[in-house]
Amino acid sequence: MLKMFDLAGADSTRRFSPYCWRIRLALAHKGLEVETIPWRFTEKAALVPGGQPLDSGKVPVLVHDDQWVADSWVIANYLEDTFTDRPSLFGGPAGQAMTRHYCSLGDVLIGSVAPFVVHDVFGHIDPVDQAYFRATREKRFGKSLEEVAAGREARLPAFRDSLIAMRVTLGNQPFFGGATPLYADYALFGAFQWARTISPLQLLAADDPIAQWRGRLLDAFDGLGRKAPGYDA
Amino acid sequence: MLKMFDLAGADSTRRFSPYCWRIRLALAHKGLEVETIPWRFTEKAALVPGGQPLDSGKVPVLVHDDQWVADSWVIANYLEDTFTDRPSLFGGPAGQAMTRHYCSLGDVLIGSVAPFVVHDVFGHIDPVDQAYFRATREKRFGKSLEEVAAGREARLPAFRDSLIAMRVTLGNQPFFGGATPLYADYALFGAFQWARTISPLQLLAADDPIAQWRGRLLDAFDGLGRKAPGYDA
Repeated sequence: MLKMFDLAGADSTRRFSPYCWRIRLALAHKGLEVETIPWRFTEKAALVPGGQPLDSGKVPVLVHDDQWVADSWVIANYLEDTFTDRPSLFGGPAGQAMTRHYCSLGDVLIGSVAPFVVHDVFGHIDPVDQAYFRATREKRFGKSLEEVAAGREARLPAFRDSLIAMRVTLGNQPFFGGATPLYADYALFGAFQWARTISPLQLLAADDPIAQWRGRLLDAFDGLGRKAPGYDA
Repeated sequence: MLKMFDLAGADSTRRFSPYCWRIRLALAHKGLEVETIPWRFTEKAALVPGGQPLDSGKVPVLVHDDQWVADSWVIANYLEDTFTDRPSLFGGPAGQAMTRHYCSLGDVLIGSVAPFVVHDVFGHIDPVDQAYFRATREKRFGKSLEEVAAGREARLPAFRDSLIAMRVTLGNQPFFGGATPLYADYALFGAFQWARTISPLQLLAADDPIAQWRGRLLDAFDGLGRKAPGYDA
């Protein structure tokens, strides 16, 4: 029995964490059913396996029978090592090692996307989270969420230009994993799915090979990503 | 019998092409001996297998018996597919697919390094290449080589900051390929070895995990990279 704590908005069906999306797709890749538990930023007290709060206080957290696993990279490896008869997320030990950098690239991408969507996140989260979210994010950015969002359209071209390496690779092959996707794809996709579930802003031009790759991943696993509440952006 | 056309400076022992370095390390990884043929930018006429000039007119070009192979990615795959009993460059089909993006990232890195070193390249190339090199590069940059180089120290911090994803990954594991290097490593290393062979500028701080990874690759294969004529930068 698999359960996953999954970041949710005021509408508990809106699931927007880029890290949780990595694991949602990893679970689907392995053909594993999961019960997702909507979780809010401030519900640190829910993440207490064996009565011990998790260090991170963050999701995703996977619960497999009585085993609690936190951190998307640790969870991906747990799934790979536990469900060895299912399709591999990495394609072997070398692939596992090479996937690590895709996670770093995905983390940097989340940081690049953040200024475009963080104000929209605020607009969707549960009121119980709003003060916490505003305080932590405004401290991180050094300005108000409204100031972070201001003029974001003018910054889109530079953001799109910054994705040139992804664009070149995806001009050569359908997925980073080759003909079919691997965890490397999900590590990067999370950032775009975060944006799509929370913001009407069109981050990518429709004819961008990155947008087309994103579309293939939205359609994967019976449209898991596309069916999720979000924007057609 | 393997030969490789290898970009050389006025001093024919100075080999500085980032793409040729990818292949030098790939050959060493496979334990293959190679005879390198010093080649200058303007010696397009040398690259004429069967009397047909290569489309690209660029190195590396590998000559294996009567087979000519151009383009570093094509060459890497040729080596992998031809010398199957030697250590793998990719770690399997998934790894091969995932390596492609490392090449794109390496290409972008070369573009980021270029403004720092292009004037030093000019200072090392053979006089026969100088007019060609200056004309093509000044067209690309839209300014003189001297203007490109001006104030480069002031731009170093932004360059180093841009490498954050590499730094995070290499803080977690010795090589992108894991405990030992793979072609993914060589695809990125080429840009740094280009700089090292041609420029006294210290691109990386000594305590940067990226510099330490570069050091491990300089030492690999009996110090192939470190012994090459260059700067201790």
